[in-house]
Amino acid sequence: MRDVAIIGVKNTKFGELWGKSLRDIVVEAGAGALEDAGIGGKEIDSLYVGNMSGGRFIDQEHIGALIADYSGLSKNLHVPATRVEAACASGGLALRQAIMAVASGYNDIVIAAGAEKMTDVGSEEASSALAAAADREWEGMAGATFPGIYAMIARLHMHRYGTTSEQLAEVAVKNHKNGSLNPIAQYKNRITVDDVLNSIMVADPLHIFDCSPITDGASALVLAPADIAHKYTDTPIYIRATAQASDTIALHDRRDITTLDATVVAAKRAYSMAKLKPEDIDLVEVHDCFTIAEICAIEDLGFAEKGKGGIVTANGETAIGGRIPVNTSGGLKACGHPVGATGIKQAVEIVTQLRGEAGKRQVEGAEYGMTHNVGGSGATAVVHIFSRER
Amino acid sequence: MRDVAIIGVKNTKFGELWGKSLRDIVVEAGAGALEDAGIGGKEIDSLYVGNMSGGRFIDQEHIGALIADYSGLSKNLHVPATRVEAACASGGLALRQAIMAVASGYNDIVIAAGAEKMTDVGSEEASSALAAAADREWEGMAGATFPGIYAMIARLHMHRYGTTSEQLAEVAVKNHKNGSLNPIAQYKNRITVDDVLNSIMVADPLHIFDCSPITDGASALVLAPADIAHKYTDTPIYIRATAQASDTIALHDRRDITTLDATVVAAKRAYSMAKLKPEDIDLVEVHDCFTIAEICAIEDLGFAEKGKGGIVTANGETAIGGRIPVNTSGGLKACGHPVGATGIKQAVEIVTQLRGEAGKRQVEGAEYGMTHNVGGSGATAVVHIFSRER
Repeated sequence: MRDVAIIGVKNTKFGELWGKSLRDIVVEAGAGALEDAGIGGKEIDSLYVGNMSGGRFIDQEHIGALIADYSGLSKNLHVPATRVEAACASGGLALRQAIMAVASGYNDIVIAAGAEKMTDVGSEEASSALAAAADREWEGMAGATFPGIYAMIARLHMHRYGTTSEQLAEVAVKNHKNGSLNPIAQYKNRITVDDVLNSIMVADPLHIFDCSPITDGASALVLAPADIAHKYTDTPIYIRATAQASDTIALHDRRDITTLDATVVAAKRAYSMAKLKPEDIDLVEVHDCFTIAEICAIEDLGFAEKGKGGIVTANGETAIGGRIPVNTSGGLKACGHPVGATGIKQAVEIVTQLRGEAGKRQVEGAEYGMTHNVGGSGATAVVHIFSRER
Repeated sequence: MRDVAIIGVKNTKFGELWGKSLRDIVVEAGAGALEDAGIGGKEIDSLYVGNMSGGRFIDQEHIGALIADYSGLSKNLHVPATRVEAACASGGLALRQAIMAVASGYNDIVIAAGAEKMTDVGSEEASSALAAAADREWEGMAGATFPGIYAMIARLHMHRYGTTSEQLAEVAVKNHKNGSLNPIAQYKNRITVDDVLNSIMVADPLHIFDCSPITDGASALVLAPADIAHKYTDTPIYIRATAQASDTIALHDRRDITTLDATVVAAKRAYSMAKLKPEDIDLVEVHDCFTIAEICAIEDLGFAEKGKGGIVTANGETAIGGRIPVNTSGGLKACGHPVGATGIKQAVEIVTQLRGEAGKRQVEGAEYGMTHNVGGSGATAVVHIFSRER
């Protein structure tokens, strides 16, 4: 198996992009990543794209072929294009398949993209489409939406570990602060704990500022074998681990709803593959679809003792400059959550940080970064580890 | 890269399975394939599933996790599960990703499954969901359905090459005859050329008997490294090539609508990888979503001269016992077309034939078989070649 490097990255602006279609934003991200890598379409061997629900959001499936076509990779080049879906972990899985394609030697230069266009439908239809990430027969039909599902996780976490609404709010406050430093972020406004606590309740105890938004956006990476990466860039970033795990799709079947076993197992596999420990990681992008999700994630990934995620956050240990900066991009909460793009955007952020190009949100001297992308309420988790040196 | 073998196969019954859900039929196919291979879930390293539109047909995305869960592969085993989508080529792409996972050494035992539950929605919603495989903005919104798109291909083929409605009908007659010999086929009734010509017109010149049906069904394969395949079965079947190509998603952008360039390119790549020629192939399952599609396919794959596909069919050269038996399973036309399952079902048929277990539809002495799976009107094509001997 060959080592794999990332040689080009690009995010579009994240937000309500009413003037652009899915094909527009994917082409923008893909072309930008190629420009960043300094290569042309003729060098591309294959394309993987993460997209959760083109069928529901824009009446369009066959997303891989669509993107290859509008990127100019189809007509004469006939580049294989494959869509990968695992709800909100679609982007992370697209990255994983792209890594496997290069590591195995099947392909040399591969694009891993992710995209979602969510604002072309109303909020009720968007909620219904997102609910299709949960168990339709046992959760969706019973009226469980994702805020409701994560509210149950939050309630038990509060009951068992004493986690408070203020600690949940601290996640949002930090991520909005980070988002204010990220040019592509959907929300750049800083907020306070009181802003969160006084915002409308969506599913008790989750206020609207505990929830990630509905977002349009696309992200792309260009991958190459590590041995030739310096041909394209002075700052290749290396993949140290890719790991994926599944869990029950419905929450009620889990061993413990305050721990995402898929995250625990994927992280264990990733640390083992990279021969690294949580203490070695300098920054991490976690899947904060809700504030409680970030608290569970930092516990499940080994950055905080179980039950202490809220305290660690309130102490500032996960802020930029803290012990383990979490979601320097602003996370899903403030940067936005175009569901199929998120897993790729997380990798773009880590690459940008490890290159030392993150501007005002730079984590100084970062050597190792991690991404953590979750599908649904944790039926899929995918963890990647990246490094600055090979 | 390691050689890969198929050690277990299973199709469910194809048809209107109103008493079963998607999760029921996938578990049936997956468990059947494991039983055929004589192994248990604990040996499974990963799962790939082809599914086109769970979001539209059953309000369920996150199909990989769903299937891992209901197959008992999630809770304690945490087996990675990835859904792959490329419209009606979703199954073929799932097989391709599974092959890559084993060939690369990432995984040893991998399940490649495909499934679609299409009859839980009405025919208008089903047509709308299927139209999402075409270019929504340039075809779907202009009212182009798939029968309409393939009717244009048929019209030009007839105009340019003199292909007749009777020759189109011969495809359906043959495939219904083959389907009558296949226990899982949706349609086992034999039909005549007159039956086709007298059936209602769907999109001139395509009658309803020129069209594949709406179908529920699931199929599964178990893959293993060739070196250990004999541990599980006396009759492993070997993968000789996997190849995929893209073309423009909309028909109007093509060089020539009577040739699917994605098929031509994927076939060329597959023959090259396998070091084989069309004359070496003993039987092929092609993507006959419409009768004209089978005629184009046998031309584009090199089994008939361009423009002669209709004549070759009418001559009986593609019948069981003919020069190159095509769609011994009954094809999409008679066996049925659960869109995400089709690419896997084609492989199940070829494996069954190469094992010599195809009963009354057996192609005697078959050594090499091919599958050809298409997404949309040819924006994606994937070709696999299989052999009886390593």
